Amino acid sequence: MISREKHNRMANAIRFLSMDAVEKANSGHPGLPMGAADVATVLFTRYMNFDPKNPLWADRDRFVLSAGHGSMLLYSLLYLTGYDDITIDDLKEFRQLGSKTAGHPEYGHISGIETTTGPLGQGLANAVGMAIAERKLAEEFGPELQDHHTYVLAGDGCLMEGISQEAIALAGHLKLNKLIVFWDDNSITIDGAVSLSDSTDQIARFKAVNWNTIQVDGHDPDAIGAAIEAAQISDKPTLIACKTVIGFGAPNKQGSHKVHGSPLGADEIAAARKSLEWEAEAFSVPADVLDAWRLAGLRSTKVRKEWEERLAASPTEKRAEFIRRFAGDLPGSFDSTIDTFKKKLAENNPTVATRKASEDVLEVVNGLLPEVLGGSADLTPSNNTKTSQMKAITPTDFSGRYIHYGIREHGMAAAMNGIALHGGLIPYGGGFLIFSDYCRPSVRLAALMGIRVVHVWTHDSIGVGEDGPTHQPIEHLASLRAIPNLLLFRPADETETAECWQLALKEKKRPSGLALTRQNLTPVRKDYEEKNLCAYGAYDLISASDAKVTIFASGSEVEIAVKAAGQLNQKGVATRVVSVPCVELFMEQPDDYREAIIGTSPVKIAVEAAVREGWDALIGSDGIFIGMKSFGASAPGKDLYKHFGITAEAVVAAAEKRLPEAVPSRQQG
Amino acid sequence: MISREKHNRMANAIRFLSMDAVEKANSGHPGLPMGAADVATVLFTRYMNFDPKNPLWADRDRFVLSAGHGSMLLYSLLYLTGYDDITIDDLKEFRQLGSKTAGHPEYGHISGIETTTGPLGQGLANAVGMAIAERKLAEEFGPELQDHHTYVLAGDGCLMEGISQEAIALAGHLKLNKLIVFWDDNSITIDGAVSLSDSTDQIARFKAVNWNTIQVDGHDPDAIGAAIEAAQISDKPTLIACKTVIGFGAPNKQGSHKVHGSPLGADEIAAARKSLEWEAEAFSVPADVLDAWRLAGLRSTKVRKEWEERLAASPTEKRAEFIRRFAGDLPGSFDSTIDTFKKKLAENNPTVATRKASEDVLEVVNGLLPEVLGGSADLTPSNNTKTSQMKAITPTDFSGRYIHYGIREHGMAAAMNGIALHGGLIPYGGGFLIFSDYCRPSVRLAALMGIRVVHVWTHDSIGVGEDGPTHQPIEHLASLRAIPNLLLFRPADETETAECWQLALKEKKRPSGLALTRQNLTPVRKDYEEKNLCAYGAYDLISASDAKVTIFASGSEVEIAVKAAGQLNQKGVATRVVSVPCVELFMEQPDDYREAIIGTSPVKIAVEAAVREGWDALIGSDGIFIGMKSFGASAPGKDLYKHFGITAEAVVAAAEKRLPEAVPSRQQG
Repeated sequence: MISREKHNRMANAIRFLSMDAVEKANSGHPGLPMGAADVATVLFTRYMNFDPKNPLWADRDRFVLSAGHGSMLLYSLLYLTGYDDITIDDLKEFRQLGSKTAGHPEYGHISGIETTTGPLGQGLANAVGMAIAERKLAEEFGPELQDHHTYVLAGDGCLMEGISQEAIALAGHLKLNKLIVFWDDNSITIDGAVSLSDSTDQIARFKAVNWNTIQVDGHDPDAIGAAIEAAQISDKPTLIACKTVIGFGAPNKQGSHKVHGSPLGADEIAAARKSLEWEAEAFSVPADVLDAWRLAGLRSTKVRKEWEERLAASPTEKRAEFIRRFAGDLPGSFDSTIDTFKKKLAENNPTVATRKASEDVLEVVNGLLPEVLGGSADLTPSNNTKTSQMKAITPTDFSGRYIHYGIREHGMAAAMNGIALHGGLIPYGGGFLIFSDYCRPSVRLAALMGIRVVHVWTHDSIGVGEDGPTHQPIEHLASLRAIPNLLLFRPADETETAECWQLALKEKKRPSGLALTRQNLTPVRKDYEEKNLCAYGAYDLISASDAKVTIFASGSEVEIAVKAAGQLNQKGVATRVVSVPCVELFMEQPDDYREAIIGTSPVKIAVEAAVREGWDALIGSDGIFIGMKSFGASAPGKDLYKHFGITAEAVVAAAEKRLPEAVPSRQQG
Repeated sequence: MISREKHNRMANAIRFLSMDAVEKANSGHPGLPMGAADVATVLFTRYMNFDPKNPLWADRDRFVLSAGHGSMLLYSLLYLTGYDDITIDDLKEFRQLGSKTAGHPEYGHISGIETTTGPLGQGLANAVGMAIAERKLAEEFGPELQDHHTYVLAGDGCLMEGISQEAIALAGHLKLNKLIVFWDDNSITIDGAVSLSDSTDQIARFKAVNWNTIQVDGHDPDAIGAAIEAAQISDKPTLIACKTVIGFGAPNKQGSHKVHGSPLGADEIAAARKSLEWEAEAFSVPADVLDAWRLAGLRSTKVRKEWEERLAASPTEKRAEFIRRFAGDLPGSFDSTIDTFKKKLAENNPTVATRKASEDVLEVVNGLLPEVLGGSADLTPSNNTKTSQMKAITPTDFSGRYIHYGIREHGMAAAMNGIALHGGLIPYGGGFLIFSDYCRPSVRLAALMGIRVVHVWTHDSIGVGEDGPTHQPIEHLASLRAIPNLLLFRPADETETAECWQLALKEKKRPSGLALTRQNLTPVRKDYEEKNLCAYGAYDLISASDAKVTIFASGSEVEIAVKAAGQLNQKGVATRVVSVPCVELFMEQPDDYREAIIGTSPVKIAVEAAVREGWDALIGSDGIFIGMKSFGASAPGKDLYKHFGITAEAVVAAAEKRLPEAVPSRQQG
């Protein structure tokens, strides 16, 4: 047992490292690390199962600093407990170019950072995904291999953001009892007192969504410990409301918003030194304190070794599967399975909506890949995301593989991030493309972190039809393509859908979104082709030597391009069609491939039922764009395509207008 | 008093019109209108103050159908109560091209539609804004001119979306006791039972955020009436949980998700006809029932006339001000005030961040325009949104003009939409540009509706610095510009900031966002110019005849462009600089202006610390873009500009590389 005095000194080490780093960087947030140091110290010295020397141990407890601005709390903990990839020099380089210790914790910078946080509420919702993953894997591999907690430190900002409600409601519903959330209840936000903007009874709020709740003095180590122990045996997720003083230890500034997000200044740090009886110099931790912390870092070594023994003693197949799953590798037969599927497709060439095509592909994928965890934000029958293997997970039965996320796009996307980060599972989730707006912050974080989550975004254009402009994506393709490191796929038929799914699932380091149609599409890839042509991002669908016109299109507009090319070719105008299922992958191709695909036709046309933004890279700024310039309208989809002039006839007319000399008289056509 | 039998027949008129319209359209959502018909009938026949012949009466009660998919409920009500701009033929044209009766209610299509709904949770959050507006205007003009309720009908989807938590927490905090929300508690979502995905105790949840709650049988008119009366005297906002049967009256399908979103089919409608003892043909309302409804539509005539008498009797100045405010007109002195400000600016040319420049402008604007209602999502000291006039509104005192919205970007944006829709006020709200992602669905709806709200988005690039990539917008300028009908301003200095604010406030039919810097900027517009140059969207900042190089830039990168142009001109390379504060306004200029601004320089360069998407329209796809291709990083802002190569030197080097023959030897420079 750690004495109170020792505890205090250990917690103060966090406080001073945080003060020092913020001071040296001349920017950062000392308030949270100082206020939450006691909570973190109790958790990391007495309860957390983790091993700094084996940071990726699959059964470690996860710790998520949802209030990511308090990054120095996490960096201090990682340094103090002895992670190899963080040194005192890294703390001195806090917030400097190229340092591991970024302003907010960045996944991948240091092995103990479980997720990138900063945008508020995201970490809490990621943790819900981690807890889902743990419970699912425990169901699958048994508690001998998966049996850990997920801890979260959340601030008032996390709890005010709407995403938190989606996250806690889902966690409460699913009874994720290994999820334990510390709320750093310091009554302070950037504008001042929480009471300026909020009167929420958080305890009652969490109870209303089926959580266990405990309130403690966040500076009382024993009370914190008792709360954690009570939480660990709860059959519900637990909120531990920790009443804290923000900036605890800074005698003149603590308890006010002045300590939240700026350096304390040398005088106040000197005062804190006195007040906390801390004599060590800046960035220096007294040997006894560092030793105690390093010892805490060794606490779980035995538990980890026992776990490894259990893994080693597992049946060969189970062990291999567990290892494969956490390595994120697909089974060797994945490619051939997709290939077989493509061969079969070439035999019947179905006219289907790509959302249905996606279901067909998933039926094969889900049969092969037990690690795939599906779901939808309450659009299951529209997204076609629930295949025959996908029994629903329920609060009492995690043997299923499908999550009814509810009408919670944001919570779903963030939970998927958490599932992917946890390891062992590959999450996909369905929604309408229009509602990608609702979960955009989580999509962006997946891209920033470089993790494999797949969004199944159906109803991807005015083809939605009668639901009207509130449900018709116009700017979404462009705005998702603008996010770095995200692959947006827009397949044109079932073959392309299979190829795009293949790419999305093989892409270990990037999230993907599939934009899929509500409406049926004529197949454009009728012959079997071994190569995954979508991997090129754009490819020649209809070639023509010395083409006068090249039509680029994606998704549902490829059939329009094909039809237009047919008419133009019939009129004697040599016309190529380039299918563009993934702009991002195309941009990554070697220059010569890109140049060849873009080609030298005097007339270049792009067709996409969306805004032009981004297409100039393919057709040039003098190219012709057939698409949308305004919001959509409510009417049957086919009427809308005509109304907005996105038709083969419009493409032909535009081409003819641009190239009159190349076109024989219209009567001939 | 309406008898139960009469009530039933009146409610059944809604049910059958809804069934008929969905059936004829062969698409739509009959479940909600049928389930909520009793609630709506009680509200509209006994309590709502509204006048179909004077639909924009400023003191009418507002009714928001937050569950917008149930649009036929609203269309039925508007038709039945006698709005002039909706006929039975409009109902027959439900969901057809060009009809007023779109799939979801569209603001502007029919005068009784108070807001566009469909994306779930938005209407509820809009209503919070409407209730804020009512209370603020009541404070300002007295209860004799403003004293109305805001009613909302919300479904499970609205309450599951995270935005609902932000909205109800804000409403509860501000004690918006004239806000009354009916929850259509039908236990059904698209995937099936609500219990598939949710276990929330909604009553407890609302109580936790300081709401009054009442539970009733949603098919018992007297109970509904009693609940409304109790709600009207509450000192808190009220949730009336109405237990309903979705698709009430369809004997074989009611109570299941099958009635939610598809036509019932002729057989089931026939069965409903029997079950509800309804003999009228499709789209036909029995005369007694229509008469009763039309009478209900006349209920508030007297109240409305009395209100008009009170308005007429008001002191001239107050009456004129009230009328001006609801017309949305700015005072005649607005332009000259901005002009005076610009003149003063030209005298001292301050080097300031544009967020600070914005504060300076607002200090003037807020002094002149009492209708401006400011706020921030808990970033007041960072957004610089609180000027000297902006005392904070509190739960007990609405004499202020500033709202601490809390860490609730989405709730804030949707509330601002509601404030603008209500009329009488112009809302602006502050946030970090990165967090525009958190409120994008509401921003989009403002653009779709064409309403005047202004987003103050500060910290608009890697110039944010140390907070790192989670806080640095990269794709946000492009993705916001991709939204139709939204003006995104990115001013380069304080003069441009003043001009952009002037444009945003004068734009009655479009929302605006101002992207503003954290970091200081050198002024680029040093001389007073009477014209608002930003109104052109892009303009010649530095002219050069026969320019070899033209540099386009926005915001913080204009000073880089100016510096680069200086170096190039010194080297003998004639270089123009075009400032581009608003791409959208530029695209609307006449062709000849656009062509002149784009010009004919052989080298065109755009500089913006963001992704390239969209810039090709100005520089061509072969133009040079100096900007971002990846996420940012955590470091001081100046270091990041260097690191990512967004510097005057990089611009000069790129220009020289492209135009070697035009550049004298480097030694000369």
